[in-house]
Amino acid sequence: MRVGVLTGGGDCPGLNAVIRAVVRKGVQEYGYEFTGFRDGWRGPLQGRTVRLDIPAVRGILPRGGTMLGSSRTNPFKEPDGVRRILDNLSGEGVDALIVIGGEDTLGVAARLSREHGVRCVGVPKTIDNDLSATDYTFGFDTAVGIATEAIDRLHTTAESHMRVLVVEVMGRHAGWIALHSGLAGGANVILIPEQRFDVDQVCGWVESRFRASYAPIVVVAEGAMPRDGDLVLKNAAARDSFGHVRLSGVGEWLAGEIERRTGKEARTTVLGHIQRGGTPSAFDRWLATRFGLHAVSAVREGEFGMMVALRGTDVVRVPIASATERLKTVPVERYEEVKVFFG
Amino acid sequence: MRVGVLTGGGDCPGLNAVIRAVVRKGVQEYGYEFTGFRDGWRGPLQGRTVRLDIPAVRGILPRGGTMLGSSRTNPFKEPDGVRRILDNLSGEGVDALIVIGGEDTLGVAARLSREHGVRCVGVPKTIDNDLSATDYTFGFDTAVGIATEAIDRLHTTAESHMRVLVVEVMGRHAGWIALHSGLAGGANVILIPEQRFDVDQVCGWVESRFRASYAPIVVVAEGAMPRDGDLVLKNAAARDSFGHVRLSGVGEWLAGEIERRTGKEARTTVLGHIQRGGTPSAFDRWLATRFGLHAVSAVREGEFGMMVALRGTDVVRVPIASATERLKTVPVERYEEVKVFFG
Amino acid sequence: MRVGVLTGGGDCPGLNAVIRAVVRKGVQEYGYEFTGFRDGWRGPLQGRTVRLDIPAVRGILPRGGTMLGSSRTNPFKEPDGVRRILDNLSGEGVDALIVIGGEDTLGVAARLSREHGVRCVGVPKTIDNDLSATDYTFGFDTAVGIATEAIDRLHTTAESHMRVLVVEVMGRHAGWIALHSGLAGGANVILIPEQRFDVDQVCGWVESRFRASYAPIVVVAEGAMPRDGDLVLKNAAARDSFGHVRLSGVGEWLAGEIERRTGKEARTTVLGHIQRGGTPSAFDRWLATRFGLHAVSAVREGEFGMMVALRGTDVVRVPIASATERLKTVPVERYEEVKVFFG
Amino acid sequence: MRVGVLTGGGDCPGLNAVIRAVVRKGVQEYGYEFTGFRDGWRGPLQGRTVRLDIPAVRGILPRGGTMLGSSRTNPFKEPDGVRRILDNLSGEGVDALIVIGGEDTLGVAARLSREHGVRCVGVPKTIDNDLSATDYTFGFDTAVGIATEAIDRLHTTAESHMRVLVVEVMGRHAGWIALHSGLAGGANVILIPEQRFDVDQVCGWVESRFRASYAPIVVVAEGAMPRDGDLVLKNAAARDSFGHVRLSGVGEWLAGEIERRTGKEARTTVLGHIQRGGTPSAFDRWLATRFGLHAVSAVREGEFGMMVALRGTDVVRVPIASATERLKTVPVERYEEVKVFFG
Repeated sequence: MRVGVLTGGGDCPGLNAVIRAVVRKGVQEYGYEFTGFRDGWRGPLQGRTVRLDIPAVRGILPRGGTMLGSSRTNPFKEPDGVRRILDNLSGEGVDALIVIGGEDTLGVAARLSREHGVRCVGVPKTIDNDLSATDYTFGFDTAVGIATEAIDRLHTTAESHMRVLVVEVMGRHAGWIALHSGLAGGANVILIPEQRFDVDQVCGWVESRFRASYAPIVVVAEGAMPRDGDLVLKNAAARDSFGHVRLSGVGEWLAGEIERRTGKEARTTVLGHIQRGGTPSAFDRWLATRFGLHAVSAVREGEFGMMVALRGTDVVRVPIASATERLKTVPVERYEEVKVFFG
Repeated sequence: MRVGVLTGGGDCPGLNAVIRAVVRKGVQEYGYEFTGFRDGWRGPLQGRTVRLDIPAVRGILPRGGTMLGSSRTNPFKEPDGVRRILDNLSGEGVDALIVIGGEDTLGVAARLSREHGVRCVGVPKTIDNDLSATDYTFGFDTAVGIATEAIDRLHTTAESHMRVLVVEVMGRHAGWIALHSGLAGGANVILIPEQRFDVDQVCGWVESRFRASYAPIVVVAEGAMPRDGDLVLKNAAARDSFGHVRLSGVGEWLAGEIERRTGKEARTTVLGHIQRGGTPSAFDRWLATRFGLHAVSAVREGEFGMMVALRGTDVVRVPIASATERLKTVPVERYEEVKVFFG
Repeated sequence: MRVGVLTGGGDCPGLNAVIRAVVRKGVQEYGYEFTGFRDGWRGPLQGRTVRLDIPAVRGILPRGGTMLGSSRTNPFKEPDGVRRILDNLSGEGVDALIVIGGEDTLGVAARLSREHGVRCVGVPKTIDNDLSATDYTFGFDTAVGIATEAIDRLHTTAESHMRVLVVEVMGRHAGWIALHSGLAGGANVILIPEQRFDVDQVCGWVESRFRASYAPIVVVAEGAMPRDGDLVLKNAAARDSFGHVRLSGVGEWLAGEIERRTGKEARTTVLGHIQRGGTPSAFDRWLATRFGLHAVSAVREGEFGMMVALRGTDVVRVPIASATERLKTVPVERYEEVKVFFG
Repeated sequence: MRVGVLTGGGDCPGLNAVIRAVVRKGVQEYGYEFTGFRDGWRGPLQGRTVRLDIPAVRGILPRGGTMLGSSRTNPFKEPDGVRRILDNLSGEGVDALIVIGGEDTLGVAARLSREHGVRCVGVPKTIDNDLSATDYTFGFDTAVGIATEAIDRLHTTAESHMRVLVVEVMGRHAGWIALHSGLAGGANVILIPEQRFDVDQVCGWVESRFRASYAPIVVVAEGAMPRDGDLVLKNAAARDSFGHVRLSGVGEWLAGEIERRTGKEARTTVLGHIQRGGTPSAFDRWLATRFGLHAVSAVREGEFGMMVALRGTDVVRVPIASATERLKTVPVERYEEVKVFFG
């Protein structure tokens, strides 16, 4: 039995831990051989492979990123893409494929499985934690930890200068990172994509915090939007002297608005890529490792078209398609719950 | 409405986060007043209180330990203990009590509630994660993170000298910390209280690791026992020249055995109290805060005799007594699952 | 003897450690009393004070920021500023002043001392490490540590996507943070304000790194400039739809140029305020504490007009004025030394 | 030109950074070839080598330990040791040797250089910072950082239970780690090998801390001794039931004494090997890298018998022999300076 492995989409702490667990268990317990495909779906598309055996996965558990590389390539959008994939899988002698990725990457797996009989097992990956089929995805806990530590650091700077600090965190469509890190970091305002925000209300919370003689921290997901906000942010795009397009992010925009409306100094920090890099947290290593172990068991048991998922403390199997059905966004009651800490 | 709050048993990162959430929500949403009792059940027993309002809980979210102090006092074992508690609660005008603690502390709450009608809501606390009614308890993730970071550090030392490093972690009756940190840290052997270990098998894993030209890390819970081990460890107690009793822990004992049987150098590190101190992880701040918010809601809704618990991503309520019914130990299949990484 | 204390300029990890050491030693060894002035020179200007005794400084050692607050107020630029300061110092019964700050704050102290006989002792503070009179200033080691950890994290993200990652760190006039964190983080290009950079040469290093099958990290100080660059960056300013001025930083600009010239994807992370916030490193706590101890000894010994400074492992005294004479920039040979790691 | 490299003695964060810098600069700037010797002096003694070129040193900068392995082998104590070393160096075609190690390892280099004309350049290494010829050695800052973080964590545990916490840190002959981490961690007592301590005075500081309603942290170097203490600790050795010798460390002994004399609960944490493992701090990466760069320059310039050393912010050269002349211990005035924080 030869099993292919690929990682697609944005990188995420824990990808290497999945790969290691898959290979360790596959080789030692089932005698499988493995083929690593490089750079997501581009690997099987172009026949680009990586050696994947036990020596190759030694020492990668604590390393961020993915030893296989990643890409956003979608074979359904490439000329003759599906046929080339089928040819390459068959040319490499690959009997089954473990696909580690988010909505897009798994969507391809679901379709290849359904339409072309490719024997796929999925492992869900999204740093934003927005896949509905699983309680958590690895990478999320690491990102929340990094953002929380940054917020911890910003408190003392804010207090020393009695300034507003706006922290923009990841989360284009779902506010989980903002919600968790904002709560854990003791933020005074948390803004998420699921709920349009009212700038005047934000300013009210900011001013209430100053009245208590403390300086406010505002955590804002990159996808959060003011009421009537689409227009505003679209217009904020500008070109610099070289013609590079620059889009003011919501964090910078909001800091400007707060300054304008409250007269208080405000500064922005955009955490950016440091949220998705580096060594995974213990929780993410644990989750990723268990996902890997269970994915290879699913291959063993012939559970193709399925994906591993976390339910409570158990790893279960669900149809890959269920990962992509709908986004898991922050429910309104969960957001309301934390408003007691605003202001 | 006046609500008493106390924290009992060993300290644990997240206790302050619970207290803060209880007070913020209780005061702001329900208009409650609070009385902090000092040092667990000793507080209501001796009428020792602490001011507990919004200014008092500012800034405590990221702080380890408990601002209320703690103890292992059990009023049922004190002369006239129950009557004194009832008198002091009534003297302070306390209408309900939020009790944050482990098996023993909550056991008192369950009994006071059942036998004397004290209106208690429980919040489960155990750094060992061994309460059966909840998926996780706060403090556990922090402890696992600290232990994992220590194991990460020990790998390079072990490799440089090609030595065995034995790491003794917390866990007297349950091996959760050993299991999670050992897995996350890439340990080559993990030993837990739930499964007696065979020293020769441990030596076999150690030697197999050396054969692969790596140095082994052995993670052992403080409560792990060799087969026929009770006797051994009891005898290992010794007295120093001042008559202090010194009990060799299992880690040190095991390192000695490995040296003797394999001829390889072995060293022990006992992580000890650093596992339970200091700032809580983001996960623990989040869990502890949500427990606090839901505990005060339970008071509001008159759900006395109940305790908050985590199920998946939801906070639910279960009878306090259920926390103390049985220990949540590591199931044998969960332990077997990780053995693929041994050796 | 009553001693005033103030902190001016940008906040910096270690300010609280200085304050604590000053007060502990002053009270316990010399029987001094202290007056804290709030918000830098604004404090004595407006007569705004803070209680400063041993209980007030308990627990502040590990806290970032400054319990006294800070500002950039310059009394020489305020109407009647000097007279108001002299009046307030005398009104508070302050016999001597310990002034903790950077070039501007200490410049005021030097002038008040020289021209008006105010008895000042200085403690140098600059997170950029650019004061010529001292080997190191506190805050710098913390900033370098945070930047290095961020660079560590970015490596795996860069590798996974084979992208260029540009990291913009602090350093408007001196490249110390870029130099140290770039070296410690294993950056492939380091750009500092002291040496104009050639974009084509940067692209050459970037491409050389890709040829070795690794992804490049470019660390750039915020004040670094391309050859003929002033013009470029001035033009890059833009206004968003609300009229906020947005200046593309050098990091974002450079990433754009690299993309344009090499055809490789490039991303920017601007570390910003997280570099100056939060708990100080052990080194900075040690340095700040020793500065504090020696500053109060200088007061005791009547060494006014002097400032503490680090020389090797000794704390020495130098004229305050010497702090402001010239900027300590990165010498060209120190920069050349690290170029062996470029590319 | 072929240059040999070896690392001897206890491992230390930064060894890999030295090796990487040596190889990068030697290959790129001088066209040198390198031979790595495995496990300290055992390598040239037994002719055991490791490939050492630019690909071999990629990615090792942030890794603790040493890729070359280490040992305490002393060729002068091995039969025919010197001749075998000379033969193997000549057999490998090695023209010069870069020796990275502490007192013992460098002592061998000094003697081989003086008595047998081996062309050696030294790089000083001691985690204890006790070499007199250099301001700092790499590894020390990392160890102090780890110990400080542990002390930070222990404060909240101590407070929650109002217990004494005794932390035993490294330092057999010199108290630098205890002094720096104790000061940075806000310890209430610091005990170092250079100054015998009086247990009653320690108990006095402990009780004074409790009177201020705080719980004391006592940091003790492993080599600290009570007055008349040799006898006491020698007697404290015991044998467990398997005949393993167990020596109570000074930390555990002291906690017992404090309990006995003050009646307060006391607990001990022995930090042990986690102080010397894992990724080096930014400071240590910087120092180790600069040591490596300057060591290979010394080879280039034919400065044999010399060792690199830090003086202020400069890397200088001193005779290797000067490293081993006398131990750099904590001067009494430096220790007196910090006593203001005791109690």
